[in-house]
Amino acid sequence: MGKVTATTTPWATELRDALGPDGVLTDPDVTSSYARDQAMLAPAGLPAAVVLPRSTADVVAVMEVATRHGVPVVPRGAGSGLAGSSNAVDGAITLVMTRMDAVLEVSPADRLAVVQPGVVNKSLRDAVAGAGLFYPPDPSSYDWCTIGGNLSTNSGGLCCVKYGVTTDYVLGLEAVLADGRVLRTGRRTVKGVAGYDLARLFVGSEGTLGVITEATLALRPAPSVPVTLVATFATTAQTGQVVERVVTTGLVPSLLEVMDNTCICAVDDLLKADLDRTAHALLVAQSDAGGEAALREIEALAELCREAGAEFVHTTDDPAEGDLLLQARRMALPALEQLGSTLIDDVAVPRSRIAAFLDGCDAIAAARALTIGVVGHAGDGNMHPTICFDPADADERERAFAAFDDILELGLSLGGTITGEHGVGSIKVDWLEREIGPVALDVHRAIKDALDPAGLLNPGKVFRSAGVRDLAGVRGLVAP
Amino acid sequence: MGKVTATTTPWATELRDALGPDGVLTDPDVTSSYARDQAMLAPAGLPAAVVLPRSTADVVAVMEVATRHGVPVVPRGAGSGLAGSSNAVDGAITLVMTRMDAVLEVSPADRLAVVQPGVVNKSLRDAVAGAGLFYPPDPSSYDWCTIGGNLSTNSGGLCCVKYGVTTDYVLGLEAVLADGRVLRTGRRTVKGVAGYDLARLFVGSEGTLGVITEATLALRPAPSVPVTLVATFATTAQTGQVVERVVTTGLVPSLLEVMDNTCICAVDDLLKADLDRTAHALLVAQSDAGGEAALREIEALAELCREAGAEFVHTTDDPAEGDLLLQARRMALPALEQLGSTLIDDVAVPRSRIAAFLDGCDAIAAARALTIGVVGHAGDGNMHPTICFDPADADERERAFAAFDDILELGLSLGGTITGEHGVGSIKVDWLEREIGPVALDVHRAIKDALDPAGLLNPGKVFRSAGVRDLAGVRGLVAP
Repeated sequence: MGKVTATTTPWATELRDALGPDGVLTDPDVTSSYARDQAMLAPAGLPAAVVLPRSTADVVAVMEVATRHGVPVVPRGAGSGLAGSSNAVDGAITLVMTRMDAVLEVSPADRLAVVQPGVVNKSLRDAVAGAGLFYPPDPSSYDWCTIGGNLSTNSGGLCCVKYGVTTDYVLGLEAVLADGRVLRTGRRTVKGVAGYDLARLFVGSEGTLGVITEATLALRPAPSVPVTLVATFATTAQTGQVVERVVTTGLVPSLLEVMDNTCICAVDDLLKADLDRTAHALLVAQSDAGGEAALREIEALAELCREAGAEFVHTTDDPAEGDLLLQARRMALPALEQLGSTLIDDVAVPRSRIAAFLDGCDAIAAARALTIGVVGHAGDGNMHPTICFDPADADERERAFAAFDDILELGLSLGGTITGEHGVGSIKVDWLEREIGPVALDVHRAIKDALDPAGLLNPGKVFRSAGVRDLAGVRGLVAP
Repeated sequence: MGKVTATTTPWATELRDALGPDGVLTDPDVTSSYARDQAMLAPAGLPAAVVLPRSTADVVAVMEVATRHGVPVVPRGAGSGLAGSSNAVDGAITLVMTRMDAVLEVSPADRLAVVQPGVVNKSLRDAVAGAGLFYPPDPSSYDWCTIGGNLSTNSGGLCCVKYGVTTDYVLGLEAVLADGRVLRTGRRTVKGVAGYDLARLFVGSEGTLGVITEATLALRPAPSVPVTLVATFATTAQTGQVVERVVTTGLVPSLLEVMDNTCICAVDDLLKADLDRTAHALLVAQSDAGGEAALREIEALAELCREAGAEFVHTTDDPAEGDLLLQARRMALPALEQLGSTLIDDVAVPRSRIAAFLDGCDAIAAARALTIGVVGHAGDGNMHPTICFDPADADERERAFAAFDDILELGLSLGGTITGEHGVGSIKVDWLEREIGPVALDVHRAIKDALDPAGLLNPGKVFRSAGVRDLAGVRGLVAP
């Protein structure tokens, strides 16, 4: 990876003229820190410049300069992504949106907020909490990821089982198109069908269609204090049965998470939490239905656990104890990271196939002689099998990548998708083509070409341009 | 409107060869009955042929023939639309999807259904009710409108205040593109972010991007039996205050509807229901939160009504009485139709502006010397001011159309949208341009051109093609 700088290029000069010198960084020692997101093993180039706009007008200026000079632009938030969506492209501008971090409006009367993309998810949550309101999407990185990044990848989180994902909260967007025009789309109203749903087309498009500069987001009333349940099981089949019964009996917990034995042991090692290391799976669930309704819902869930043969079931309406119980789930990934480098997968399967998916992951771990811990949003079928390996061991590394693909294959074979909430980014471009097929791929390309004919926005991410049959070094570029 | 037939055209022959003679109707006495939807005053041509496919393969054949011969195609469901979206275009094929009416799958374990587009909304509701499941979107025409039409216009209904609109239930779609290729997009999983959200781009696109041939729809657990409230008010300000307090106090009723005095009197005339004809507004609300939670929610709502100065508040947990109370709301449009021809508008405003909107409609009725009854989904701000007039009276007719525009103007001035749930169709093309502006319009055209370069799918609906500055006779074609 050569050091590419843009200190003296005409476009860098034009950008400095427009944004001021502190908005355009070209020192490779600085720009290299913006090269990649949290998908540490995804390919990444080095930004020619890192540009930090303070306003929509700044973003317009950047895109106009980029279009004039044919310079690619990679939009980026805080860099918490897990698919390499915002990884740098050699010679391109990395457009870092973190300085546009204002909560422009919170309207309790219309139950919405208007924000700039650089607002941290938690900051928005805190800003609306004072008005008794709630912004549900809660990716694990909620205390540092930005709303702009959440919009780009259509982030989910623990709340999805009851409250849905980012796109479900998007009323309107402002986005700067590749040529610098400002698109405003959507609305401030609860309902609206005036024209195509461009807002939801842009959400999840991972910065390939435009740079989101403002969002109008629906909020919900603050939920009640949750009641919490933990249960452990001797078999995955039992866990799968509970999830299936939750679905078929119509329970709607506000959280329903699963961890496998590998995760249980890793968390126990890290937290010394005295977890049952022999349990094959652990479920954590919450209900925020409020008062007796929540108690009833959790008791119904406890009964489903007992019917399925749970070894241990515990419930509490003490929020502090609930937080402690959830802590085991929240620490699963940090705990797995103690075991080596991690490749975090992100498959969603139909809820009826969760047990089959967990068993399949066990089989893959055995066949590839690897440690794979599975943690997941059981309530919505979005699972994160996490492969732990030593990247310095070439053979193990190869087996890890093979297992990553095995898991995607397994997910598709069960009627699932290759990505439930992390996105395609740079790590699943081949798999996207496989999942959506040639017609849908052509439609993607047609829409991309219509909005970004020069292919400047986040090139090589999500899918290849027509004619590009191989993304140079998707695997070859992987840094150890 | 000249009678255009296609009996002997080569393309009609090709269609008959592909679909069989009973799938291709060209007798003008028959095809004329497919000329228009329920927006009785919208412009409409006469179909050159009405084609009734029985399968996706049939639709592919139709689009291939249409593309080969450059014949426009207007997709249509049952014809319950209220914006002229499926109104015929002279010389075009009207593609009637009602024979593709199978519920292909109901999966309680994955809480979803897979349906063909011709399934009637109520048939789907009935098909899933047996499994304890619920398909929420409930347009007023739910007992005869089709899911395909609901998808095309992103239909809402009474449930939206709690349960959202059609797009919120769409997991995956199959659609035939203009050139006959079959696009499959979306998923069977709760979550999924693999590529652009094409499903939600097609939902609400009113048949301009493709012909939807299958949909995978999320379902919900069946709700509890509702508890119902009715309240009447002396001023619209009081009604607006209740809605605003509902929002700010975080109540989430499953239904919250409003009728103005004109509607109250019209319904009373029709049903002899002994309604308070002096009341300025009537609210109907329900909670399906279940058991005591529902009683508490309705009692909290009753308290908000009393605080706002309601003249009359009545609540009941008897479902039969609740149905009777709702009946007044459901009969509002039929009752208004007793007063003359109707122009039904469909403005959504931010919920904080409902009182201002109601007052504005009163002022428009006075200024235009017309009867305008306002009925609406107060809980989500989607209002249906309905202008009653005599179309044979040229002056009154002109004032009615002027008032229709006044109402849209009012809606936009309050931060609202020109259509909350009926769509743009052929009646609001000019207004769409006004609402979304030139950049969003260009993006619409770019996407349309990318997917339907020959402009064959539902031409002239939603927005004009680039270069077409005036849709011939949008108002001139209006049939009395």
